[in-house]
Formats: sequence, C-alpha cells, structure tokens
Amino acid sequence: METKSGRLGIGLVGSGFMGRAHAFAFNAVSQTFDLPLKPALAVLADQNEAQAAEAARRLGFARAVSDWRALVGDPEIDVVSITTPNHLHKPIALAALEAGKAVYCEKPLAATLADAKQMAEAARASGRVTLVGFNYLKNPIIGLAREIATSGEIGEIVAFRGIHAEDYMTDPAAPHSFRTHPVGGGVLMDLGSHIVSLARYLVGPIQEVSAAAETVHKTRPSADGPRPVEVDDHGHLVARFANGAIGTISASWVTPGRKMQLDFELVGTRGSLVFTQERFNELKFYVGEQKGRDGFKTLLAGPDTPPYGNFCPAPGHQLGFNDLKTIEVAHLVEAITGGKSASPDFQEAYEIQRTIAAALRSARARTWIGVETL
Amino acid sequence: METKSGRLGIGLVGSGFMGRAHAFAFNAVSQTFDLPLKPALAVLADQNEAQAAEAARRLGFARAVSDWRALVGDPEIDVVSITTPNHLHKPIALAALEAGKAVYCEKPLAATLADAKQMAEAARASGRVTLVGFNYLKNPIIGLAREIATSGEIGEIVAFRGIHAEDYMTDPAAPHSFRTHPVGGGVLMDLGSHIVSLARYLVGPIQEVSAAAETVHKTRPSADGPRPVEVDDHGHLVARFANGAIGTISASWVTPGRKMQLDFELVGTRGSLVFTQERFNELKFYVGEQKGRDGFKTLLAGPDTPPYGNFCPAPGHQLGFNDLKTIEVAHLVEAITGGKSASPDFQEAYEIQRTIAAALRSARARTWIGVETL
Amino acid sequence: METKSGRLGIGLVGSGFMGRAHAFAFNAVSQTFDLPLKPALAVLADQNEAQAAEAARRLGFARAVSDWRALVGDPEIDVVSITTPNHLHKPIALAALEAGKAVYCEKPLAATLADAKQMAEAARASGRVTLVGFNYLKNPIIGLAREIATSGEIGEIVAFRGIHAEDYMTDPAAPHSFRTHPVGGGVLMDLGSHIVSLARYLVGPIQEVSAAAETVHKTRPSADGPRPVEVDDHGHLVARFANGAIGTISASWVTPGRKMQLDFELVGTRGSLVFTQERFNELKFYVGEQKGRDGFKTLLAGPDTPPYGNFCPAPGHQLGFNDLKTIEVAHLVEAITGGKSASPDFQEAYEIQRTIAAALRSARARTWIGVETL
Amino acid sequence: METKSGRLGIGLVGSGFMGRAHAFAFNAVSQTFDLPLKPALAVLADQNEAQAAEAARRLGFARAVSDWRALVGDPEIDVVSITTPNHLHKPIALAALEAGKAVYCEKPLAATLADAKQMAEAARASGRVTLVGFNYLKNPIIGLAREIATSGEIGEIVAFRGIHAEDYMTDPAAPHSFRTHPVGGGVLMDLGSHIVSLARYLVGPIQEVSAAAETVHKTRPSADGPRPVEVDDHGHLVARFANGAIGTISASWVTPGRKMQLDFELVGTRGSLVFTQERFNELKFYVGEQKGRDGFKTLLAGPDTPPYGNFCPAPGHQLGFNDLKTIEVAHLVEAITGGKSASPDFQEAYEIQRTIAAALRSARARTWIGVETL
Repeated sequence: METKSGRLGIGLVGSGFMGRAHAFAFNAVSQTFDLPLKPALAVLADQNEAQAAEAARRLGFARAVSDWRALVGDPEIDVVSITTPNHLHKPIALAALEAGKAVYCEKPLAATLADAKQMAEAARASGRVTLVGFNYLKNPIIGLAREIATSGEIGEIVAFRGIHAEDYMTDPAAPHSFRTHPVGGGVLMDLGSHIVSLARYLVGPIQEVSAAAETVHKTRPSADGPRPVEVDDHGHLVARFANGAIGTISASWVTPGRKMQLDFELVGTRGSLVFTQERFNELKFYVGEQKGRDGFKTLLAGPDTPPYGNFCPAPGHQLGFNDLKTIEVAHLVEAITGGKSASPDFQEAYEIQRTIAAALRSARARTWIGVETL
Repeated sequence: METKSGRLGIGLVGSGFMGRAHAFAFNAVSQTFDLPLKPALAVLADQNEAQAAEAARRLGFARAVSDWRALVGDPEIDVVSITTPNHLHKPIALAALEAGKAVYCEKPLAATLADAKQMAEAARASGRVTLVGFNYLKNPIIGLAREIATSGEIGEIVAFRGIHAEDYMTDPAAPHSFRTHPVGGGVLMDLGSHIVSLARYLVGPIQEVSAAAETVHKTRPSADGPRPVEVDDHGHLVARFANGAIGTISASWVTPGRKMQLDFELVGTRGSLVFTQERFNELKFYVGEQKGRDGFKTLLAGPDTPPYGNFCPAPGHQLGFNDLKTIEVAHLVEAITGGKSASPDFQEAYEIQRTIAAALRSARARTWIGVETL
Repeated sequence: METKSGRLGIGLVGSGFMGRAHAFAFNAVSQTFDLPLKPALAVLADQNEAQAAEAARRLGFARAVSDWRALVGDPEIDVVSITTPNHLHKPIALAALEAGKAVYCEKPLAATLADAKQMAEAARASGRVTLVGFNYLKNPIIGLAREIATSGEIGEIVAFRGIHAEDYMTDPAAPHSFRTHPVGGGVLMDLGSHIVSLARYLVGPIQEVSAAAETVHKTRPSADGPRPVEVDDHGHLVARFANGAIGTISASWVTPGRKMQLDFELVGTRGSLVFTQERFNELKFYVGEQKGRDGFKTLLAGPDTPPYGNFCPAPGHQLGFNDLKTIEVAHLVEAITGGKSASPDFQEAYEIQRTIAAALRSARARTWIGVETL
Repeated sequence: METKSGRLGIGLVGSGFMGRAHAFAFNAVSQTFDLPLKPALAVLADQNEAQAAEAARRLGFARAVSDWRALVGDPEIDVVSITTPNHLHKPIALAALEAGKAVYCEKPLAATLADAKQMAEAARASGRVTLVGFNYLKNPIIGLAREIATSGEIGEIVAFRGIHAEDYMTDPAAPHSFRTHPVGGGVLMDLGSHIVSLARYLVGPIQEVSAAAETVHKTRPSADGPRPVEVDDHGHLVARFANGAIGTISASWVTPGRKMQLDFELVGTRGSLVFTQERFNELKFYVGEQKGRDGFKTLLAGPDTPPYGNFCPAPGHQLGFNDLKTIEVAHLVEAITGGKSASPDFQEAYEIQRTIAAALRSARARTWIGVETL
C-alpha cells in the first residue's frame, strides 16, 4: 500500500468508548511495535461538530469533521476506523472500501446479516485489508490457548463451554438504547458474538445450534414512557462444531455481579484449558496425568506469550484492556504494510454474525438450525 | 415406625464405595445428631459370602449374608440400604417396601425410566420412607444456596448454568464396565443426574430440554477385545424450567483434570450464586449493588449454615464428603422417626431420571423434548 | 500393649468441641482403618455429673464419671484422651502415664513450659505412647507437602512464611475466658502453636526468633466488669531454622473475616509450595521451569495422598475437619498396637511450646532469643 | 512553571525496561488525562550514541544525545526522567534540579542512604517537583485500599503482612549484575522497597524493624569466573509502625514460580484487606459481620475507582502495568502544572530507603533498629 510520506493516515469515525480505545491504540502502537509505517492521527469525524473538535483535541487528531463522508474521501486517510452505532457500519465501510481505504470496524459487523454479507463481499472484491474489533482474541494468553488447542498438545478438542455475561442491563430501569433496538440483535449479538468469536478461534466453525433466549425485563423506560423490549436479555445454546466437538454457549447482560465474565472451558482428549476474562493474564492448563503431581497449572502471560514482551519484559506484570487494542492495531498495520490479510476480517466477522443469527432463529423456531442454511 | 428395642436396624446391600459410605454415615450419625433412634448396623449382604463377612467385620455389622432376600426379610431390619449395581435397585427396593421397610437407595434410582416409575409408585403405595443418595444436596452451603434462591433474596431466578464433569473415563484404555453398559444411561445418568438434582432443588422442575451428546471413545477394551460403546461420554443441553428460567446443563466423564467439577451459576434478577463442588464449603454470593464496594462475597460454611454445627462449632473448618452422607442419613432417620417424608424420595429421583431420559431422547431425536411427555 | 479382650478401652476427659471430636474419631476409625484393635468408648469424665452422663449417652460411651481420677485408674481404660482446659493437662497426663496408659492430649501440651517439660520427661520415662492433637499435620495433602519438602524435590528449603489467623476475638465485647487467662499464653500459644507445628514438620527445628506482639483490646468484659487483658491478641516473628532457612510466622485471633487462615508458603531452591487451611484439600505446587508452560499447579487430595483412600476412593471429594482427627486416632492406635512411637508426641509438643515461649520472651525482651536457651 | 510553547519538554535518560515505560506513559497521558500541558518527547539520552538514536526513533523522541549533561542543560527540557542504573540517579538529579527542571526518577532513589538524603535535601531546597517511580502505588484499587484503610472504614489498622517475591534470581547460574552489586542493596532494596512503599502508603511510617536476611547462592558467575555475592537473596522482618500496628515484611528474588508476588494483608479492628499484584485489578475486602452472609468480597477496579475511567468506562476490563505508569505521569504533570507537590517525592523515597537501610543494619546487627536512628 502506498501511503503519504511514510505515515499511515488514520481517520476515526466516532469518539465514544471504542473511538477512544482506537485512538489510544493507534497512538501507542508505534512505540510498542516496530512497524514500517507510523500511524498518524489525521481526521476524527463525529456528528456533532463541537464534540468532534473537542475529541480531536483531546485524542490528538490533526483535524475534525462532522461528516464521515468528508473523512472517507480524504486523500490523507489510509485507514478508516469505524466506531459508530452498528447501523452506520455498512455505509461507512462500503464507502471506505470503495475509496480504497483499509477498514477497521468495531463488532458486530453490521445491523443485519444481509448487511454483514454485503460488507464481506465488498471487502473481498476490494482487496483491501479489513479487521473487526474482536479484541479479546488479541490477548497473548489466548494466543497460547490457540496454540495449545490447535497443536494437538491436549489431543483432539471434544468440548467447549463458553459464556459472556455482564450486568449492565440488570437494572430494569436501564433505559432503551441502541442495545435494545431490534436491529442490535440483543445480547447474543452484543456479547454472544465475543464468545462465539473465541469458540471459532479455538475450536473452529460451529455447524449447528439449538438455542433458547429470554427477555427478562419486558419493558424498559424510554422518553415516551415504558416501551416493550424486542430483544433478548440472555440466551443459551447447544452447539455442534464442524470438527465434531459439542458444547454450550451463553450470553447475558442481566447477570448481577458479573463485569466481564467472558469465560470458557475447552476440553481435549488429553487435556483441558480454563479461562476467564476477569483474570485475562492467566490460563488454567491441564495435560496428561502425573501420578501424585496431577493438577491444573496456572500459566501467566509473559515474554513467552508474544507480543506481551513488546509491552513489558517481565512476566506477571499484566497487560490491560487497552493493550489488547494496541495489539489489534499492530496486526492491522502489519497486514496493511505487509500485504497480508488481517484477522478477524469482514469475512470472519460475517461468519460470527451468521452463527449468532442461526442462534436467534433457533430460539424462535425452537429447533436446531444449521449455520450454513442462513 | 415401631422398631425393635429403641434401635433402628440397618441392612446394607453392597459393600463398595457407596456401601462403605453408608456404613460410615450410619455409624457417625448417632454422635453427630440427637436422634430418637440409634441406627444399629445389623446385616450386610454381598453376593460373595467371604467378601460379605469381611466387609461386615470391617464396617461393624453384626451379621453378613450373601443373599439380599434374607436381609430384606429379616425382622431385625428396619431400613434397607441399597448400594448395588443399578439394575438391582428395583427388585431389592420393591421387596423391601413390600416387607414394610424404609428404603435408602443410591442414585440413579433405576436402570430404566419404567423401572424408576414403578419404584416411585410402589413407594407411594407403601407409605414407607424412601430416600435416594443425591448426597451433594445435603451440603449445608447448598442449603444456604437454596434459602437464598427460594426466598426472593436475589429476586426471581432467571438462569442456571450447571455441569458435572470428571475425568475417570478420559483414558481410552478405561475398560467397559457397568458404567458403559447401555442400561446405565451413560454419563448423563451417572453424573448428569447430580447436576439435574441440584437444578431442580434450587430452581424447580425442568420443563423441556434440547440436547447433544457424544461418545468420544467409540470402543473400549473388554475381556473379548475392543467392544463398541453405546453410551455417551459427554452431553450438553439447553433447559427451560417451569418457572421460566433457562440455561445449560453439561455432563462429562472425559474432561481431563476435573475430579469433581459439580459446578453451577445461578442468576436471579437481583443477585447471583456461584458454586463448585471442588470447594464445597464455599459459596460465591452477589446481591444488589453497593457503589464502590461492589463484588461477589465468599461465604464459608459454619455454624450459621446448619447442620454444620453438629460436626464442628467453628466456621471454616470444613466438612468432608462423608459428612454429607451423615447428614443424608440423619434426614432419613428423622423422617422415619418423625413420620415425615424424606427428600429426595423415590418420586423426586424418578423426576430427575425422567429429565435425564428426556435429554437422552432429545439428543437422539435432535429436537426439544418436553420432560412430561415421557 | 496388652488390652482387655481385643479392644482398646478409651477414656475421654472433657466433652466440649475437642472432646466430641475425639469421640467422633474413635468411633469412625475402626471402619476407615484396618486396625488390629478396635477402640471401645468406655468411660467419659466431665466435672459436672449430669453433663457427663448426657455426653456419654450422646457420644456413645458406656459409662460416665465426674472425677477424672476414677477414669485414669480404671483397668478397662487403655488410652486416656485429654480435652480439658490446659491447666489440667499435666495432672491428668502424669497420672495416666503412671497408671500405664497411653495418653492422647489436646494442644497446647501444658499451661507452662516447665509443665510441658515435666510431661515430656514423664512420657519418656514411662515408655508409653503419647500423642498431641496438632490435627492439621494429619491432613493427607500436608503429608504430600512434607514428602515434597523433605525429599529434595524442590531443592533445599530456604524460606517459610506462615500464619494462623482467625477472628473469634475481634469483637472487643468478647469476654475474658481461659483463652485470655495469662497461663494460656495468648494467641501465640493458642493458634501460633499450630503454625509452628507445621513449620517444624515441614522445615525442621526453629533455632531462634525475634518477635513483636500486641494486645489490641486492652480490657475485656468479665463478671466483675472490664478487666485488663494480659495476653497478646496478635504476634509476629522472624525465625531462623536449624537448617539455615529463615522466614516469618504470625498468629492472630483478631483478624476480621478470617475463619481458618492457617496458611504457609514454603520456598525451596528449585520449587515452592503454597497452602491455606481454608481449602485444605488443595496444595499449590511449583517446581523447575517449563518454558511456556510455567506455573503453579493445584494438586487435589485423593487416593494418591494416603490415607485419603481410606475415606473415599475418588479424588476431589474432600476430607473434612473431623476426618483429620480420625487419621490422628489411627496413628495413635497404630503406635499403641505396633509398639512404635506416635507423632507429634509429648516431646515434640514440648519443642513446639518451647518455640512459642521463646517468641513470647523475645517480644518482651525486644531481642533475638535462642529457642534452646529456654 | 513556565514552559516553552504550551508543551512540557521531556528529557529521558536511559532506554531500558523503565525508559521505555516512561516513554509509553508520556505518550499515552495526553489522551487519557485532560492535562493543561501536553508532554513532548524532546530528548533521549543514552551512553551509546547509536543506541540512543535508535531508541529515540522507536520511542518517538525528537532528538538523541549520548551525554545526559547535554539533556539536563537543554532549555527545551522541562522534566528530566531518570531510568539509569542507580548510582547515576544522584548526579543527574542534582544537576537537573540545579538547572530548574522537574525530576522523575526510578526507584530506589539512590545507591546509598547518604546519597538519597542529599537528593531529598536538594529537592526541598530547589522547590522543584520530584516524583519517584513506585508505580504500584498508582493502581486505582490501591487507591481504594488507602481510602478504606485511612478513613476508619475498617477501624484502626493493627497489622500489616506484606511481601514482594519474584523468581528472577532463582537460577544459581544467573550472573552477577548491577542487582548483585553491593551498592544495589540486594533484594530488600530492589523489591523490598516496593512493599515498604505500600506499607507506608497504607499504614504510615515504620518506626523500627528486626530483620533476618540470607544469601542463598553464595557465588554467581561473572566474566572472571565465580564471584562471591555480597547482597541478600531474601530478607524478612518484623516491623512496628508509628501508629502502633505491627507485622511482617518479606522480600525475595529467589522464590521459584513467583512472577509478581507483591502481596499484602492489612488488618483493622473492624475489617481486613487482601491484595496480590498478580491480580492487581482486584481487592479482597471484609468489614463487619453479617450473620449468615459473612465473607470477603472481591472488589474489581472500575469507574468507581478513579482514574480507571480515564482508560475505560466499563468495570472489569482491567488496567495493565503500563497504565500504572501513565497514571504516575499524570500525577507528575498535574503537580508541575498545578504548583502542587507530587507523591512519592524524593523525601518519601528517602524515607522508604531509610526503612530498608534500617532493615539491612538490623539483619547485620541482629537487633531491633529504629528507623530514625539512621
């Protein structure tokens, strides 16, 4: 990719939680990774002009605009970072790809599966690098988990039991928002997509699912008074993977006390892994059997689990959430500059979304649904 | 119940792991509980005469017999304790009930659902006390969990996520046995019944299930060489409870490293519970929200969780597995002497077994199965 | 030892927490261990006659007496079990040894170091079996810890960091009792003796100590109003072991929230052990270094850690506090019948007490104290 | 402080582990904190000219120099960041203070206590802002611990039990280095200073100590063959605090398996705190007693523990080690721009070092040492 003056021009659309996280990561990545091109925070777009200007100042962007189209068309921009509400992902991404930009998009990929498919196809057609922000996959200890799971070290993988539960919608007074809007897909799309991304990363494609889902709080406050909620507050499914493994996957945003329960247990014929995102620098690992010295080991992230060493040379010091985003951005820049594809790209994000869509359909139809039938 | 000379005559059939556990419990219960009647270890029956005599001597039974019929018909016997292979539960229990004895039977209740139903009906008709050995329900901290779950303290229960996984069949060289015999029902019956018993105890009846199950090791060694395995090594299901809660339940005897993973997470609208049998004197408890002091509490079993205090007046000292059996026996004796019914009785054990049978049928039929349709 | 009619006559003095625990253990041991002689619960002595009779009935003793001298002199008694307040340990033990009985005594051995020394000497002179109830040493996983620590498996032991903290005296309204009586020795004697017994068991003799200790609540309620407290509520010391290891030992009965924090970390030149009594069926174990698979292992008690298998054939099911007492009694009976000595005997209990006495003297003198100088 | 053109010119001396961490933090702080002045990475100094240039390029410094004197004298520099070997701290800091710069220095403050004192005095005389890199104090959950400890929420603090153990010198083949050089002060200065800084932060000044320390590996390889080691590999002490609390403090770099065991237990008259740096986004908290719902709570860092929210709006997502450095730098910049003093400053770092020096002297003299006597 040719870029202006040895720098990679970054255009960020959106300046909320994830917008800030993208900006932090683009800023940090040049110091922590030895990249051929240094990202330059060029343009920040946000609907509200004053807010855009203020965010640009605070986050260190050179310019601010209020229309994302101006950003996408800007020749100084090499990468378009999309952190808007979900329904805007598609128009921005398609325009960016058409303009020849690399696209870095927050999850879930799109508001509907049809949109996601269209985006994946556009990405493939464009030949441009795309990357979707399933940041928990970038955790070095998850990299180790994948190495253990895919190398045969714990035998053939036969079971996966995962969950992503939090409590931010526990309060029945939590109001309607983009999260509870029908196009959002409810908790299975919002959180379930994370645990599905992990399941696919560690075990492979999910072939079919049988799900149940419920709306615990049937109405939520809105400006117009109590409004019915049309999406699920929690969902649970049995999954069958392409490799023959089976297991369960759950998602909930109404689990009191859980702040970041993105957990899994992965079972092979000779060993097991156990993980919780609430202690994401640790992995519980069991293999084989040693008479009298038999037990799960607690592995800690460190220089042996790259790219931890880019952040700190000493083990046990721990990476934080924003560091995962920095690794994600490093992968993005490496793909752009190296002519490789990034992962998870639009295609993989579409597959994740398709799996969730199958779960939602299964919950409604009360039957097993093959993921590929969607 | 009238008994001979102020003592409760105990007849034990079987002298394996569970036979010994019953004997330990009948021996310990008079010291730990203030019961109106003291169990007397009267007769032990085991097929092999020499083995029966040796077990009787070691476990402190007054006499040994090799035919359980002799035990059941013995007028000195008030309680028949059944710890034989599953297929013998029915004939012994029916004979014992007919002879007017109380029956204390190990789980699962019977080799087939039809047998279990027949036993539950016979128990009801007899009016005798029955109790089935789902000993993990007798844990004082599980009693606390039930109190919290049913009192409304954490709101309405909306989700349950449970598992019972161990690793004793992980080795493909583990031979065929009663466990892998088709009438055994595989791991869902063997271990799954424990987690289903907990689910029912804490949340209530399961209405319908959708399940998947797999045999990881398709053959196992037998005296006649490798023999196909017809039961499941692990199974997973989505469950819908009568009260509207949903969730997942898993069972596995091929999970490397797990020795006693009988775990659950129980979610209410205002709080949560988390438990693992590997640390069964602890319960993680979350309720409400206290700004800045928000988190799961680790509750420890102690005198506040009766009947812990019968064993030890100081908290944190911990009960062991055999103590759970002692509590079970105390409940049995209290029911017999108090004219109350014990729990879980044959009827409840039948309901547990029916739930498992529904899961097995669901896995084969690849569809949701209503538990009451069986 | 010759005993009456193939049975070992047990005489129990005291019927409180520890009296009951002894009775439970003598009752359970015949079933769980294959011993040449079966303990028979013969006589229970308690000052109050009615209380003695009631305890004897409940605990299954054949007879009750109100004077321990009658018990000690009884020819049916082979073993005298002492669970009285500390100041009575000496007269009872000396009388019992003189009467040719084996003596099983609760810790600490005596009210004063001089008394403890006299008891150890009397025991040696008598040639009788003695055993002191440092029951936490009987934990199978502590047996494993000792094997690991003493076999060289983790190299040479260089450091030990231990504590025994509970919270039963946290409340300033907790009244004066035998615990706060000056002859009791305060928390260092009451709880500190447990962690010192572990330190000696795992590392060896402590050569010298430098300690600090404090009375947090300077007065406590008594029948006569607030009374000054003359013993320590918590104490901390630096220790130097005979083998060159160094470390710290703490004891506290005023640590809010701690129910059974009998914890240690043991450091060798090639590995480490970490333990807490609040999860006493687990041992954290680290040895060597395996690049990329480096971490502490959680070992669970099971049949590989004898005598766990005497209680349960399956790992991970867990022993309870009372099971530790049963193991202790098994060791006692094996020593008596096998002509071996039991451990920890009066001599070892004296050494433990001497170490505590050195700590108390060090705290007062504000200087290092050699344990052997006492 | 007047600075050139609205920016704060940063001069970094050293480009190792800590040099990089400083650069990361100065880069990240403008995005994460709303500061009146933005740090500008102006000059990096490293002895080796090529290395300096390369580090400047990678870390984003405008210029590189090989002589720190050039950096200190540079008018574009407002803050001198010192991450060199310990013996260079003094000359650089004194020159920087004399040149009117703010000084940000890594711990320990100096190679000797006399040097540390001279630096503290120079800092006071200069009126300039100084800050020493005890970064673990900047952890939001440690901020919460301090709030709980100092507000009276858990009563009066009566005990502290702390340790900092790692395993990077466990291998006897680990060679001599600046760490094992006598001026380094051994493990008590290297790691012990961290746990002492925490003890002072949470409980207050330490008045006197009694210590023991040992060199486990008496020689270590050097270019000239095996060389005797003159510093300690681990040390342990009893401490008495000015407020009357007592407890123990340990430090070790030879504890196999420990990567970041910076742990403490803090005991008040009404509650307790437990912390380990290996899970530094968590704090175990106990207060009061709630009958039947009594237990330690696990608090997680989140927006309620500022300035966590500057990094992430959602709780449970976790900060990493480098984020602690960013908070440290924010405090530095706030102090410089706000005319306040930063903490821990040179004076506090001197007090920490004095406490360690007292421990070292105590270990040699085998007696209690008052910290103020040094």
